Amino acid sequence: MSRSRVVVVGAGFAGYQTARTLARRAPRHVEVVLLNPTDYFLYLPLLPQVAAGILEPRRVTVSLTRSLPGVRLVLGEASGVDLDTRHVHYVDAEGRKGELRYDRLVLSVGSVNRLLPIPGVTQHAKGFRGLPEALYLRDHMIRQLELAAETEDPDERAARATFVVVGAGYTGTEVAAHGQLLTRSMARHNPVLRSAPPPRWLLLDIAPRVMPEMDERLSRTAERVLRGRGVDIRTGTSVKEATQDGVLLDDGEFVASRSLIWCVGVRPDPLVEEVGLPTEKGRLVVDEYLNVPGHPEVFACGDAAAVPDRTRPGQYTPMTAQHAWRQGKAAGRNIIASYGRGERAPYEHHDKGFAVDLGGIKAAANPWHVPLSGPVAGAVTRGYHLLAMPGNRVRVAADWFLDAVLPRQAVQLGMVRSWSVPLDTASPELARVPYE
Amino acid sequence: MSRSRVVVVGAGFAGYQTARTLARRAPRHVEVVLLNPTDYFLYLPLLPQVAAGILEPRRVTVSLTRSLPGVRLVLGEASGVDLDTRHVHYVDAEGRKGELRYDRLVLSVGSVNRLLPIPGVTQHAKGFRGLPEALYLRDHMIRQLELAAETEDPDERAARATFVVVGAGYTGTEVAAHGQLLTRSMARHNPVLRSAPPPRWLLLDIAPRVMPEMDERLSRTAERVLRGRGVDIRTGTSVKEATQDGVLLDDGEFVASRSLIWCVGVRPDPLVEEVGLPTEKGRLVVDEYLNVPGHPEVFACGDAAAVPDRTRPGQYTPMTAQHAWRQGKAAGRNIIASYGRGERAPYEHHDKGFAVDLGGIKAAANPWHVPLSGPVAGAVTRGYHLLAMPGNRVRVAADWFLDAVLPRQAVQLGMVRSWSVPLDTASPELARVPYE
Repeated sequence: MSRSRVVVVGAGFAGYQTARTLARRAPRHVEVVLLNPTDYFLYLPLLPQVAAGILEPRRVTVSLTRSLPGVRLVLGEASGVDLDTRHVHYVDAEGRKGELRYDRLVLSVGSVNRLLPIPGVTQHAKGFRGLPEALYLRDHMIRQLELAAETEDPDERAARATFVVVGAGYTGTEVAAHGQLLTRSMARHNPVLRSAPPPRWLLLDIAPRVMPEMDERLSRTAERVLRGRGVDIRTGTSVKEATQDGVLLDDGEFVASRSLIWCVGVRPDPLVEEVGLPTEKGRLVVDEYLNVPGHPEVFACGDAAAVPDRTRPGQYTPMTAQHAWRQGKAAGRNIIASYGRGERAPYEHHDKGFAVDLGGIKAAANPWHVPLSGPVAGAVTRGYHLLAMPGNRVRVAADWFLDAVLPRQAVQLGMVRSWSVPLDTASPELARVPYE
Repeated sequence: MSRSRVVVVGAGFAGYQTARTLARRAPRHVEVVLLNPTDYFLYLPLLPQVAAGILEPRRVTVSLTRSLPGVRLVLGEASGVDLDTRHVHYVDAEGRKGELRYDRLVLSVGSVNRLLPIPGVTQHAKGFRGLPEALYLRDHMIRQLELAAETEDPDERAARATFVVVGAGYTGTEVAAHGQLLTRSMARHNPVLRSAPPPRWLLLDIAPRVMPEMDERLSRTAERVLRGRGVDIRTGTSVKEATQDGVLLDDGEFVASRSLIWCVGVRPDPLVEEVGLPTEKGRLVVDEYLNVPGHPEVFACGDAAAVPDRTRPGQYTPMTAQHAWRQGKAAGRNIIASYGRGERAPYEHHDKGFAVDLGGIKAAANPWHVPLSGPVAGAVTRGYHLLAMPGNRVRVAADWFLDAVLPRQAVQLGMVRSWSVPLDTASPELARVPYE
């Protein structure tokens, strides 16, 4: 029997899980090819801890070749899909063009930083969607405090020690929580900054509360913890303009700062719109089997797909890792069913609660909707991440242990600079390269 | 009493130790300023283990502000010295010009990659002198093997799995030893490469034996271990030309490879020649007190200084970390003596032996000239490094432990690309930045 090829595009939560399910259960004559710009799966929820210097960057990566034996990895970035001839076009790791023929296609290309038409934001803000941005932010925070300590000008010192996070969702809240702890600890150990006002963190959101998409109790816990540490939370507030010297808020206040961190959310990868199939807010429309109507050979899942939410009729599933992970598994199974093995099944998932790590031993979690806070939530959150990661658990746990017993390291390696991490990019997983 | 300022330029082994000695013992009215492009001291001897993925890059860095309380750190790169007005000029972390007045000056700017006038080398070879190059090499080795697994062309596959190290000194020998183990382990875990010939490593040197500058027994041990693992050692051999496709050796053989690693040694930082004082092979001439003749306020030590070797009359001390470390201490003490505290003393040091880590549990060492090999040497070598590092010991030991019990991680983060690490650079400690 000639081989049939499934091409999975993108190895985020959805694509990784699709490939894993296929590798384990697909019939022998099915070849599984995974096209991804990096050779690793990134465990995104721990990215704020990379930025804060708690976890080394490799800790939150899981090698695709090692953890997915039997899957052929092609390093490259998809540039287009030809539905008629059934080919995916891509650009490989050395800039050369390539193409892959497919019999089944899974589009799991994920999402990128969401932009808003606010003057100056694209130039002066940095996103938080991949490892390059997390490492940039780590270096940037440390460098700003070092320069704050060097200068004799009190205004410059205050501006360099002020950090503005826009968007108080899950990511923005964690970035502010961990970032504030890092900068506070650095300032306390610095002979100059010790006697200056402590670093200032602002967390803005247009919504009336932090983490508006989550349970209200989670929200209240997070707000209480952050306010208690001195984070200046401004709900119902947005940015009017960003400049090199700071941020103008919509209430007229100007905040002098060199650090604008953009966590207003994500939008589907722009590749989705280019495929030429019906979309819904940039997401590829699929049925409850994660199948594109009229194209039995094309599947989509995760942030890039508009999946009907059977628990909330008329709506689509939210863009969360929890859904992407489970949709990947469902897509894998339904593809296997399309080869005559097993029955296809509609996707349905009731959310299992959330966990927000607030740094130190604080967290807010509601596993199976039981509200938790404080050290218990902290332990539950870290335990949850260890179980959820598809690899590298011992190394992550080791870093947590070292961070608990040793002072946090505060050095900047300077490998990722501003130019390499533009906010407006279709590939936040890669640092932009000047010229090879 | 008005304050007197000592400016130490460069925080390598020599400068770090000078600053530390001054911070601990200098009179109160002496201000110690350390000018350095990075905020950390780099423990260079463990760099090959960073390239091999054993140690995370931050492990081999020690924060200057944390470990040198009382020293004022200025982040910047020295661009010139004005001996008449006693000023050091520099470019700061954000590209702005600055200057520092000094009463005493210590030039400890270290060394950079040595170049040889061989066609193609500057374009196609990479050095091994700082963290950016080590991270580049780590990614590069992994990427080459991944691309070797992807291609269908057996010639391309062989070329991508061939690595050429030029220069079999301490650094080149360790890079080849650790690199070969990393690539061998990766290939064994890869379904495609497992059945191909194993990755090929060549270690070239013009000298008749590896590590020609060291004891012959060390040399023999290293050669035996590496040959036993299949490393192709070519002594008495040099490179005639480097191209994009490989390396032409002086015996006429062409080795197809995408990886030319340049470890032929170092030359003093080019800043030294620009100061306008007498030099010897690019090193600043100093007396046995590490003082520049005719300039009682200027000191130099480490690789950048030509220090008379009292144990070998008529010669200068070799450019090793061991000498730099001790010269830094001596320079610090002699500067303190110049303020009337204690007596100045001439620099004299008998070398204490060397230790070469060959990866796995193998090493070659001769502490106090007792020749050791095998696991005993391995333990002695690692113990020596832990004692010698001025900080971060627990984290280094933790990484060694994790590497002993877990499979090596083989993912490439792609933060440092070829363009950012040119061989011909005066600042190998920094990744080149496209535009800020």
